[in-house]
Amino acid sequence: MSVLIVGSVALDSVATPHGKVDDALGGSATYFSLAAKLFAKDVNVVAVVGEDFPKRHTEMLLGKGINLDGLVVTEGKTFRWAGEYDESFGDPETLYTQLNVFEEFAPELPEHYCGSSFVFLGNIDPCLQRQVVNQIKAPVLVAADTMNFWIEGKLDELKALMGEIDLLLINALEVRMLSNDKSLLCGARKVLEMGPKVLVVKRGEFGVLMVTKDDLFVLPAYPIEQVIDPTGAGDSFAGAFMGYLASCGKIDFHELKRAVVAGTIVASMNVEGFSVERLANLSRKDIIERMEYFQEITEFTVPEFAG
Amino acid sequence: MSVLIVGSVALDSVATPHGKVDDALGGSATYFSLAAKLFAKDVNVVAVVGEDFPKRHTEMLLGKGINLDGLVVTEGKTFRWAGEYDESFGDPETLYTQLNVFEEFAPELPEHYCGSSFVFLGNIDPCLQRQVVNQIKAPVLVAADTMNFWIEGKLDELKALMGEIDLLLINALEVRMLSNDKSLLCGARKVLEMGPKVLVVKRGEFGVLMVTKDDLFVLPAYPIEQVIDPTGAGDSFAGAFMGYLASCGKIDFHELKRAVVAGTIVASMNVEGFSVERLANLSRKDIIERMEYFQEITEFTVPEFAG
Repeated sequence: MSVLIVGSVALDSVATPHGKVDDALGGSATYFSLAAKLFAKDVNVVAVVGEDFPKRHTEMLLGKGINLDGLVVTEGKTFRWAGEYDESFGDPETLYTQLNVFEEFAPELPEHYCGSSFVFLGNIDPCLQRQVVNQIKAPVLVAADTMNFWIEGKLDELKALMGEIDLLLINALEVRMLSNDKSLLCGARKVLEMGPKVLVVKRGEFGVLMVTKDDLFVLPAYPIEQVIDPTGAGDSFAGAFMGYLASCGKIDFHELKRAVVAGTIVASMNVEGFSVERLANLSRKDIIERMEYFQEITEFTVPEFAG
Repeated sequence: MSVLIVGSVALDSVATPHGKVDDALGGSATYFSLAAKLFAKDVNVVAVVGEDFPKRHTEMLLGKGINLDGLVVTEGKTFRWAGEYDESFGDPETLYTQLNVFEEFAPELPEHYCGSSFVFLGNIDPCLQRQVVNQIKAPVLVAADTMNFWIEGKLDELKALMGEIDLLLINALEVRMLSNDKSLLCGARKVLEMGPKVLVVKRGEFGVLMVTKDDLFVLPAYPIEQVIDPTGAGDSFAGAFMGYLASCGKIDFHELKRAVVAGTIVASMNVEGFSVERLANLSRKDIIERMEYFQEITEFTVPEFAG
């Protein structure tokens, strides 16, 4: 089944203790679509770039079989972000954000995108996210990301959106902001009451918590030797998560768990290189091998106690 | 097989957003021994208290079947600590630390303790930890805890100790201090080169990482609704970990993983009450039930991918 992503395509300048890149390919829709395409047959991108967007990036994405019919090229410059990570790889220091053509982004779906089954609303204005939902005819699963900026600035619109989606994918801080609860688990349950049937909480290097009304899943992050560039970790997680679900054809908690694992593994590989260099060169075999190893290093059995 | 713990027995005054206790039973040897006794038949305590130590605490511990022959009562007052946790349940603010009789603690093992099989050196001066190791005749497994204070102040003694123990149980910050490596996994491998065959890294609400030369285990924390008092989480983890190993009679990576799970589960229960109130009232059934649920909410299978 097909996956639709609405988000940003950007040119990122990123410095980490392991090197730097300038105007490298980035943006939520970029990371998402490359990760989703590892699993799903059809991946449809809705985004905007400026006339300066390098043709080689478009060609690379098209070469992967990603559908760019919804990638609008507009007069002006492409969204640019520059940031620097220190050795802790916590939140980066933003050096500049130039929204450029992204500032006026009003996602319009090509007609043939409106039948997409798995829809991911990247982190944009919740008003725009709702406009996208309304254009989809018969979605199987609608998921959304958001951020503190929208929780603080457009809470009413965000709450309206939450009534229209199936799954929310946010971080622990955002759960606390939305729920006003210091306990992550209690807060997560409060967020579920706002609408989504599934809440996936990204905890960065500490893994993922997934909560539904009846079920719970906790997964540590995949332990990697060396983070090279954490940019795109959340978006590649989301892409693999949605792509996996679209590929397996059914949504139950068992498959949702596997989708979290797929997301975790692909994100762990993405951060082992700058920009999309690692993501664009992954094979299915690499992913399966790491998934199997991950199972081995996380599984345990409950002992039988005498007496 | 028998477990020996050398550590503190204290009277803690703790305030958290959920209440407060004054001069409540605490100390590493207390939490450790109660947790270890849930699994192991013989638990031997080496610690010191003052003449003011309430008889009811001694009686409670004896009532659990914990061996207190090595609990010395000395002229003076018992070690006291007072701290306050805020809603984040990060590091507490210490209001006071009164070492009292603990300041002159020089652990002497009763003769019949010297045959203990599983030895845990609680977080005390590494010189004293080494003195204890030397008194044990034929240990099966010697484990130690330490802290930033000793890493900064007695690194040479600590390094000597590391050559004499099998297992080190520390937190992520301490791994970074010992290894000078920002990558937890690379740092952990460097710590293994200092002597211990097994390194268990406590990451608090984010779980545990266990590393040996050949194997790796990552486990998230058990997700609890509400932390009431985090005091003793690490020590109850250590106690259940060592107690479980002593009870199962063999040490391989499979059992080490189960020991980490046992530690995680008992620690998660300990923090659901003040002082030892929850720990002192746990049943084997409670533990098994939570272990089974924990397995359910963490396990996954690797999908078979077509194509």
